[in-house]
Amino acid sequence: MTLLIRPYSPEDWNAVWAILEPVFRAGETYPFPRDITAATARDAWTSGPKQVFVAVEDATNRLLGTYYLRPNFEGGASHICNCGYVVSEHARGLGIAARMCAHSQSEAIARGYRAMQYNLVVSTNDSAVHLWQKMGFGIIGTVPEAFRHPRLGFVDAYVMYKRLDGAAAPAG
Amino acid sequence: MTLLIRPYSPEDWNAVWAILEPVFRAGETYPFPRDITAATARDAWTSGPKQVFVAVEDATNRLLGTYYLRPNFEGGASHICNCGYVVSEHARGLGIAARMCAHSQSEAIARGYRAMQYNLVVSTNDSAVHLWQKMGFGIIGTVPEAFRHPRLGFVDAYVMYKRLDGAAAPAG
Repeated sequence: MTLLIRPYSPEDWNAVWAILEPVFRAGETYPFPRDITAATARDAWTSGPKQVFVAVEDATNRLLGTYYLRPNFEGGASHICNCGYVVSEHARGLGIAARMCAHSQSEAIARGYRAMQYNLVVSTNDSAVHLWQKMGFGIIGTVPEAFRHPRLGFVDAYVMYKRLDGAAAPAG
Repeated sequence: MTLLIRPYSPEDWNAVWAILEPVFRAGETYPFPRDITAATARDAWTSGPKQVFVAVEDATNRLLGTYYLRPNFEGGASHICNCGYVVSEHARGLGIAARMCAHSQSEAIARGYRAMQYNLVVSTNDSAVHLWQKMGFGIIGTVPEAFRHPRLGFVDAYVMYKRLDGAAAPAG
């Protein structure tokens, strides 16, 4: 599968929401209200100082994933960025998250960020934790019982971090 | 000194800004742009889902400190709160930060939060780090070179955390 990662544009929203909605409704990985409206989700995912991207299957033009890149803090800490990634439930296991993560690191380096930080990686989200570790992120902190999982109750979350300067720019 | 801690109201803004401005301009502790405008600072400190408080010297009605309390995350992680505290440069060493921290914990417990998290405590801000430790917070993570200090260059920052449930409600 040839995957194209390109900037989001507003006409992508319906397809992006179709990807985000089941993930937000499940409430197992992202700290958004499970009953979030499309309008609020749109603000949360695309507004403010965010760069938003979509991953599109080249042959079919189907949208299979999305991520945002933003400064995690401002001012004296604005050299650290933060990203959130969601892959379509219909396209799991194809390496799309890894592709978006690599792409986001390239974009972050191009924008002058020195590091990337994930603030709340739910510890029970094994596939994400393992993928981020494989992509070079380390667990730099554990927030006890940070996340109320719908099935598992209160579970820990990790703060994960990767230094970007000097990193090889991965192909996007 | 008898200190009263009460909710912020919009007419407090000028006095609050007089406290915040030198701290934000110095850029040594908070991740806000050093050239932040009053209007942007007002938004950052008082808007959104924040509860804002001011610490007032009872005898003189002088405003000596301010803090905000807000959810650190939403959805499945909305049981963790976050606070920011600033004490007037003219009133340091009087225990006002400790009083505000104790007050914020009471307020947080009353609102049903289970924990309080500080996301970016600049490691060179010794007095803050020590005070938060004294107030029961632990360092649960260190973000390498998270903060560009105007004099010291890139310095680490701590993620600090205190579990609140079962904590005695301190007097405000």
